[in-house]
Amino acid sequence: MNIDMIHAAAERLKGHARTTPMLNSPFLDEIAGRRLYVKAECLQHTGSFKFRGAWSAISTLDEDARKRGVIAYSSGNHGQGIPFAAKHFNTPAVVVMPSDAPEMKIANTRALGAEVILYDRENEDRDDIGAKLANERSLTLIKPFDNPLVIAGQGTTGLEIADQCKTEGVENADVLVCCGGGGLTSGIALALEEHAPGLRARPIEPEDYDDVCRSLASGAIQRNNLQSGGICDAIVTPQPGDLTFPIMKRLCGPGIAVTEDEVLMAMAHIFARLKIVAEPGGAVAVAAALFHADEIQGDAVVAVVSGGNVDAKLFTRALATL
Amino acid sequence: MNIDMIHAAAERLKGHARTTPMLNSPFLDEIAGRRLYVKAECLQHTGSFKFRGAWSAISTLDEDARKRGVIAYSSGNHGQGIPFAAKHFNTPAVVVMPSDAPEMKIANTRALGAEVILYDRENEDRDDIGAKLANERSLTLIKPFDNPLVIAGQGTTGLEIADQCKTEGVENADVLVCCGGGGLTSGIALALEEHAPGLRARPIEPEDYDDVCRSLASGAIQRNNLQSGGICDAIVTPQPGDLTFPIMKRLCGPGIAVTEDEVLMAMAHIFARLKIVAEPGGAVAVAAALFHADEIQGDAVVAVVSGGNVDAKLFTRALATL
Repeated sequence: MNIDMIHAAAERLKGHARTTPMLNSPFLDEIAGRRLYVKAECLQHTGSFKFRGAWSAISTLDEDARKRGVIAYSSGNHGQGIPFAAKHFNTPAVVVMPSDAPEMKIANTRALGAEVILYDRENEDRDDIGAKLANERSLTLIKPFDNPLVIAGQGTTGLEIADQCKTEGVENADVLVCCGGGGLTSGIALALEEHAPGLRARPIEPEDYDDVCRSLASGAIQRNNLQSGGICDAIVTPQPGDLTFPIMKRLCGPGIAVTEDEVLMAMAHIFARLKIVAEPGGAVAVAAALFHADEIQGDAVVAVVSGGNVDAKLFTRALATL
Repeated sequence: MNIDMIHAAAERLKGHARTTPMLNSPFLDEIAGRRLYVKAECLQHTGSFKFRGAWSAISTLDEDARKRGVIAYSSGNHGQGIPFAAKHFNTPAVVVMPSDAPEMKIANTRALGAEVILYDRENEDRDDIGAKLANERSLTLIKPFDNPLVIAGQGTTGLEIADQCKTEGVENADVLVCCGGGGLTSGIALALEEHAPGLRARPIEPEDYDDVCRSLASGAIQRNNLQSGGICDAIVTPQPGDLTFPIMKRLCGPGIAVTEDEVLMAMAHIFARLKIVAEPGGAVAVAAALFHADEIQGDAVVAVVSGGNVDAKLFTRALATL
């Protein structure tokens, strides 16, 4: 896993992924106590950065593999990115999703053309289900984060952050990344290492699901006790990936864990000031920037909004905090 | 008023205005019955396109005029664009706002450094108030739409649409523009005339406030009976401008009027599918694209989301339509 793979992914994604804007507001700067730049990956196709990794992986398959199809497991965002990208290559897509995923995500995954298979997050292992189906149907399994092509695709977000920070004159700053298994975080960290060495990626997680924070602190992979529940469904994963953890350990600053109340308030501020829609798991980085300023270094801070796939009901709950 | 003024404004705005993305979603294409591209001007500084015109006008003032200050009247978006731009030039800003403007807009205008003066939209004339204050304090009055420098600034949106449509391969399409006094619509129409002659600007308005639609249909300026009320506060104006109307008459296709229910549903679809926040007046163009497809021509359609400054309460009402 290296920077060349991210450059190659950027070539494959050219003209297909959106270059998402980096937004800011004086009102948010005031709360954050420094200039806050928000990388709006919720504006990516399918409403999350996951499109990048999905396209990166599927675009490398040979004709036979494309015809047989792909399989993915996902709480929803990877599960939307996969069929959206697969459709372009006329590739059948199967998506294994937890039965407690937001309705909108399940409905969207189906509407994008995927066959959806639901599983019980507490009692079944999605790796087992995915491996079994892939084997039975000769499908290519595209893991959500522990796949070099996927990490390379997510890393293209980091190339854009490096470029956009240069334009803004930001040379030294923490780059806060919403972190599940670490695909986006490790990809961004690799891109920044090469193109913006003064920028430091840091994983941000919800309290009680802070496996990456604890793993980085202890130096060895730690698991979450809880595997479901909470509002940040997009970034609830059992533990950091075998591929992503060593990269994060080498390159990332310490993680930050935020509360659900902070997440809901961050979603409301993002709505009011930036006019974009963040899902809870996609708002944790902004929550850290706004409400954990004392744990952050630099005159400026960058926070990635990784996705915007949230039900109206939960979004309404967030707006009520304003 | 000509294309050279728009090019000059684009030069002044370079590095200061955001180039806003043009977004799309297969889910919206399906409802619209054609490819729908949404120009997300809600992502502009201060949450609306008005920043462009404000910066365009203030950036041309000489040092003395900048020191004395500027005055604007606005239901809110022009009133946020003016102080935001003025601050950059160390220019004092006075904004005359209707007392029934959304609270968020009044609060934001103050927080951006403007002196806010409220007036009664039904019984007072904002032109009179603006002219009187400008005279008393030697302020430069920057009208919200009937000002060539403002129209030129708004027209830079049209330059971007022309570029982005070229990239997407869109050569013939209606470009639906949320229309109040016609500054944005006429500016975009001028830009498209020069740079994308196959794209045709069309003004979109709310029912009961469709002065531009009726003026274009009759060939002469018509007034609205109502001057306030309704949810589309951003685009409620007494009548088309003396400068903007002749441009729209020469270049625009027929207007379309949409209902408030259509506007609320459009806001909800924009939330769910594009992950951006549209205010009611900023959603009328998408409402026309989604729910008035039979009045639109072309394989593709472009709709401008002109702003996103909406209170949480009204946004929640829109989400309830999902």
